[in-house]
Amino acid sequence: MQIETFPNPTPGRHYEITHVNHEFTSVCPKTGLPDFGTITITYIPDELCLELKSLKYYFLEYRNKGIFYEAVTNQILDDLVAACKPLEMSVISQWGVRGGMTSTIVATYKRD
Amino acid sequence: MQIETFPNPTPGRHYEITHVNHEFTSVCPKTGLPDFGTITITYIPDELCLELKSLKYYFLEYRNKGIFYEAVTNQILDDLVAACKPLEMSVISQWGVRGGMTSTIVATYKRD
Amino acid sequence: MQIETFPNPTPGRHYEITHVNHEFTSVCPKTGLPDFGTITITYIPDELCLELKSLKYYFLEYRNKGIFYEAVTNQILDDLVAACKPLEMSVISQWGVRGGMTSTIVATYKRD
Amino acid sequence: MQIETFPNPTPGRHYEITHVNHEFTSVCPKTGLPDFGTITITYIPDELCLELKSLKYYFLEYRNKGIFYEAVTNQILDDLVAACKPLEMSVISQWGVRGGMTSTIVATYKRD
Amino acid sequence: MQIETFPNPTPGRHYEITHVNHEFTSVCPKTGLPDFGTITITYIPDELCLELKSLKYYFLEYRNKGIFYEAVTNQILDDLVAACKPLEMSVISQWGVRGGMTSTIVATYKRD
Amino acid sequence: MQIETFPNPTPGRHYEITHVNHEFTSVCPKTGLPDFGTITITYIPDELCLELKSLKYYFLEYRNKGIFYEAVTNQILDDLVAACKPLEMSVISQWGVRGGMTSTIVATYKRD
Amino acid sequence: MQIETFPNPTPGRHYEITHVNHEFTSVCPKTGLPDFGTITITYIPDELCLELKSLKYYFLEYRNKGIFYEAVTNQILDDLVAACKPLEMSVISQWGVRGGMTSTIVATYKRD
Amino acid sequence: MQIETFPNPTPGRHYEITHVNHEFTSVCPKTGLPDFGTITITYIPDELCLELKSLKYYFLEYRNKGIFYEAVTNQILDDLVAACKPLEMSVISQWGVRGGMTSTIVATYKRD
Amino acid sequence: MQIETFPNPTPGRHYEITHVNHEFTSVCPKTGLPDFGTITITYIPDELCLELKSLKYYFLEYRNKGIFYEAVTNQILDDLVAACKPLEMSVISQWGVRGGMTSTIVATYKRD
Amino acid sequence: MQIETFPNPTPGRHYEITHVNHEFTSVCPKTGLPDFGTITITYIPDELCLELKSLKYYFLEYRNKGIFYEAVTNQILDDLVAACKPLEMSVISQWGVRGGMTSTIVATYKRD
Repeated sequence: MQIETFPNPTPGRHYEITHVNHEFTSVCPKTGLPDFGTITITYIPDELCLELKSLKYYFLEYRNKGIFYEAVTNQILDDLVAACKPLEMSVISQWGVRGGMTSTIVATYKRD
Repeated sequence: MQIETFPNPTPGRHYEITHVNHEFTSVCPKTGLPDFGTITITYIPDELCLELKSLKYYFLEYRNKGIFYEAVTNQILDDLVAACKPLEMSVISQWGVRGGMTSTIVATYKRD
Repeated sequence: MQIETFPNPTPGRHYEITHVNHEFTSVCPKTGLPDFGTITITYIPDELCLELKSLKYYFLEYRNKGIFYEAVTNQILDDLVAACKPLEMSVISQWGVRGGMTSTIVATYKRD
Repeated sequence: MQIETFPNPTPGRHYEITHVNHEFTSVCPKTGLPDFGTITITYIPDELCLELKSLKYYFLEYRNKGIFYEAVTNQILDDLVAACKPLEMSVISQWGVRGGMTSTIVATYKRD
Repeated sequence: MQIETFPNPTPGRHYEITHVNHEFTSVCPKTGLPDFGTITITYIPDELCLELKSLKYYFLEYRNKGIFYEAVTNQILDDLVAACKPLEMSVISQWGVRGGMTSTIVATYKRD
Repeated sequence: MQIETFPNPTPGRHYEITHVNHEFTSVCPKTGLPDFGTITITYIPDELCLELKSLKYYFLEYRNKGIFYEAVTNQILDDLVAACKPLEMSVISQWGVRGGMTSTIVATYKRD
Repeated sequence: MQIETFPNPTPGRHYEITHVNHEFTSVCPKTGLPDFGTITITYIPDELCLELKSLKYYFLEYRNKGIFYEAVTNQILDDLVAACKPLEMSVISQWGVRGGMTSTIVATYKRD
Repeated sequence: MQIETFPNPTPGRHYEITHVNHEFTSVCPKTGLPDFGTITITYIPDELCLELKSLKYYFLEYRNKGIFYEAVTNQILDDLVAACKPLEMSVISQWGVRGGMTSTIVATYKRD
Repeated sequence: MQIETFPNPTPGRHYEITHVNHEFTSVCPKTGLPDFGTITITYIPDELCLELKSLKYYFLEYRNKGIFYEAVTNQILDDLVAACKPLEMSVISQWGVRGGMTSTIVATYKRD
Repeated sequence: MQIETFPNPTPGRHYEITHVNHEFTSVCPKTGLPDFGTITITYIPDELCLELKSLKYYFLEYRNKGIFYEAVTNQILDDLVAACKPLEMSVISQWGVRGGMTSTIVATYKRD
C-alpha cells in the first residue's frame, strides 16, 4: 500500500499536524482475537504532508493482520516517517480493555 | 474583507487574549463537501487588539471556499498577524470526523 | 457458528439480561469500508440463557461481512431469538460517524 | 435533489431507525448569518428505508438557504415523509447559542 | 416591552418549540443581590410563534428587577401565554447556589 | 427551629418547586461519625411556600444530631409538610460512600 | 452469614430505599478469574430495614465464590427478600468488560 | 467601593489563593447588551489577603457598566493589586458565546 | 488529637503519597455558618507515613471550629509536617460556592 | 508467580509502554476488609517487554493478601523492575473511598 503525500503549503514554518484514527483494529497474534484501538499521529512536516485518504487505507491493512501492540506502534512510526520524511513524529496507540487492563504505547522520531 | 482592530487598552502589559470560533466551516477542495471545525486564536497584543465582530465576518468568508486543513490554518495565522501585528500568536484548527479520523493543526508566530 | 446456551438458573422469575458489545465491526456492502458500532442485546429469558463466550464468537463472524445497518440489526435479533427462545428481546445497534451522521437501529421481538 | 430509498430488509417487523446529522447548517433569513444545528431523524419504516448518502446530500442543500428554525424542521419532516412513506417519523432540530439562548424544535408525523 | 410573534409556518401540525436562556439574571427583593438562572420555555404553538430577538429583550427587563423565584417563573408564563396564545406552554427556572442550595421552579399552562 | 413560609404568589396554579441542599451533614448514631448527603425537596404548594433562608437554618440543626438515613428522610418530610401544608411533597436523600456503598432514600407525601 | 435488620422507623409510609455496592467481586466458575461489578438494591420496606454493615459483610462472602452473573443476581434477591420481607425489591448487577462486552442483569420481586 | 483586606495569617510562607466568580456580568459598550463571564483571581499574598464579601460587592459594580473584555480584565488586576499589594497575581476572564465565539483573557502581575 | 504515623516501608526511595478528604467541614468564624471543602494532602515521606484512620479523626476536629480558609489550610500543613516530618508536603483546600464564588488555597512545605 | 517477558521488538528506540489495571484488589492488613484500586504501570523497555497475560496473573496474587497501600505500590515496582529490567518505570496506585478519603501513591525507578 502506497501512503500518498502532498507538498507542505507553508514549508518555511514549523507547525504541527495531528491525525487521530478512532477506528483502528488489528488481530492479536497469540489468540487470533481482534484488538481495537485509537492511533494518534502527530508530526512537524518538512516538505511533505500525509494525504488523509491514503492514510485511512494504510490503516485498513492492519484489519486482519496478527501483530502485537508494541510492534504495530513502531511499525506505523517507521512507515509514516519513510513516507513523508518529517522533522519530528510521534505515534500513540491506546487499546481497549483486555483482562481488566488497558494499554498505551508511545513511540517518537526526531530527525538528527 | 477588512479585519478591524482597536487600540490595546493596556499596551505596557504582556497579556494573552484567546478567541475560539466553535462554528467554523469551509469546503474540501477535493470532494466539494463541507468541513466543520473549531478555530482557536491566542495572541499577545502589542498596540492593537482584534475586534470581535469583524473577526466573525472574516471567518464567514471561508464558508464556501475550497481549502485544505493545513492551508486554512496557516492562512488565518498570516491574515491575523498582518492585521494586528501581535508579539506572539497561535492558530489551532480542530476538525470533525472524516473516515473515522479527526485532525488538529497548530501553527505559531513569534515576532523576532 | 453455533450460539451456545445454558439453562436459566431461575426459570420461574421474569428478569432481564443485557449484553453490550462495544467492539462490533462489519463492512459496508456499498463501499467495502469497515463500519464500527455498539450492539446492545436485552432479553427476558424463558428456559435458556445466552452463553457469553459463544456470543462473542458469533459477533466476530460479521468482521469481514458486507451488510447494511438495518439488515445486521434484524439478522442478530433473528439469530439470537432462534438460539435462546426468549420471552422478549431487543437489539440496538449504534454506529460511528459517516458523512457527519451517526445512526441507531432498534429492533424488538416479543413472543406471542 | 432526489432523496433515495431502498427496500426495507425486514418489512414485516415494526422497528426504529435514527439518523443524527451533527453538522447541519443553514442561514438566518433575518440577519443573513449562518445557523448551526443538529438534526435527529427517527422513523419506523414501512416498505422503504432512507439511503444515507442521498440524505447527506439533501441536508447540504440548506447550507446557503435562508430559513427559520421552525420552518426548516417542518420542511425536513415533510420532505422525508414524502420520500419514504414511513409509519411514523419525528424530526428534532437543536440549534447553537444565539443571544445567550439555545433552541430545540420537535415535529412528528404518524400515518393515519 | 412588546414580545413580538410571527405566524406559525405549519399551523395544522402540533409540534413543540423550546427556547433556553442560559444567561438570565434578576435581583433578590430581600437582599438586593443578583440571582442567576436558566429559563427554559417549551410550547406548542397555535397560530403564533415567539420571535427570538424580542424574547431576548423581554428577558433583559428583569436584569435590575427585584422578584422572587416563584413569582418570576409564573410571571414569564403569564406574559408569554398572553403574547403567543399557545395550545400548551411550560416555564422552568433553575437557579444558582445560594446557601449551599439550588432551586428549580416548573409552571405549566394548557388551554382549556 | 421555626420553618418560615410566605404566601404562594400564584395560588390558583398547580406548579412544582424544588430545593436541593448539596451540603447536608448529620451524625451516624451507631459510630458517631459524620454522614454527608444531598437532600432534594420537591413540592406542589397550596397556599404557602417554604422560605429559603429558614429552610437552610432548619437543615443546620441536623449537623450534630445522631440519626439514621431512613429516619432523617422521613423526619424532614414530616416537618416540611407540617410547615407549608403542600398538595404533594417528596424528599430524596443521597448519601456519600460508606464501606464501598452509597445509599438513596425517597419518601413521598400526597394530600388525601 | 446473618443479614441483620432493624425496625422500619416509618412503617405506615410506602417509601423507597436504595443501596449501591460499587466494589462487588466474585469469581467466574468457568475460568476461575475474578469478576467485578456494581450491585444496586432498591426496596420498599414493610416492617424491617436492611442494616448496612451486615449487608457489606454479606457481599464479602462472594469474594472467592464461583458463580455466574445470572445466578448471583437472583441469589442476592432471594437472600435479601428472605431477610427483610419487603413489599417490593429489585437487584441490578452491572459487570466490567469481558471480551469487549459489558453485562447487566435486573431481577425484581413483588409481594403478592 | 472599598475592597477590604485582612492580615495574612501566615505571612512568612509563599502560598497561593484562588477565588473564582462564576456569576460575573457587565455590559458591552458597543451594543449595550449584557456580557456573562467567569473571573478567576489567583495571587500570592504578602501581608494582606482579600476579604471575600467585599470582593463580591466589588464585582457587583460592573453589573451595569459598559466595558470591553480586555479592559475589564486589566482593570480588575489593577484594582486588586492596589488593594492587597500581593507578590504575584493573575486575573483570567472567560466569556460566554457571542456570534459563535467564546473568549478568554489572561493578565498577570508580578512585583519587581 | 494525636496524628499517628507508621514507619515508611521503603525509606530509601523518594515517592509520593496523596490523601484526599472529600468530606471536610468547618465553620466560618464571621457568620457561624458551616463551610464545606475538599482537602488534598500530598507528601514525600522520610521515615514516617501518616496513618489514615488517625488522619480522618484529625480532620473531624475542625467540624465545629470557627476558622478562615487561609488559616485552616496553613494549620493543617503545620500539624501534618510536625507529625510525620516529610521531605516535602503540600495542602490544597477547595471550598464550595459562597456568594457565587469558589475558592482554592495551596500551601507548600519543603525541608531545607 | 513468574512474570513473563518477551524481547522488545524495537530495542534501539526509547519508547514508553503503559498498562492500567482497572480491577486491582487486595486486603487491608488492619481490618481484613478488601481494598479496591487502579494500578498504572509506565516504563521505557530496554531489551524486554512485560507479557500482558502473566502480568494479569501476577496482579491476581494480591487478591487475598493483606498489605498496605504504600507497601503494595513499592512491591509491584520492585517485582516488575526485577522482571524486565527497564530503563525507567513508574507505578501509580489509586484507591477507592475509605472514611471519606481517597489515596494515590506514586513510586518511580530510573536505572543509574
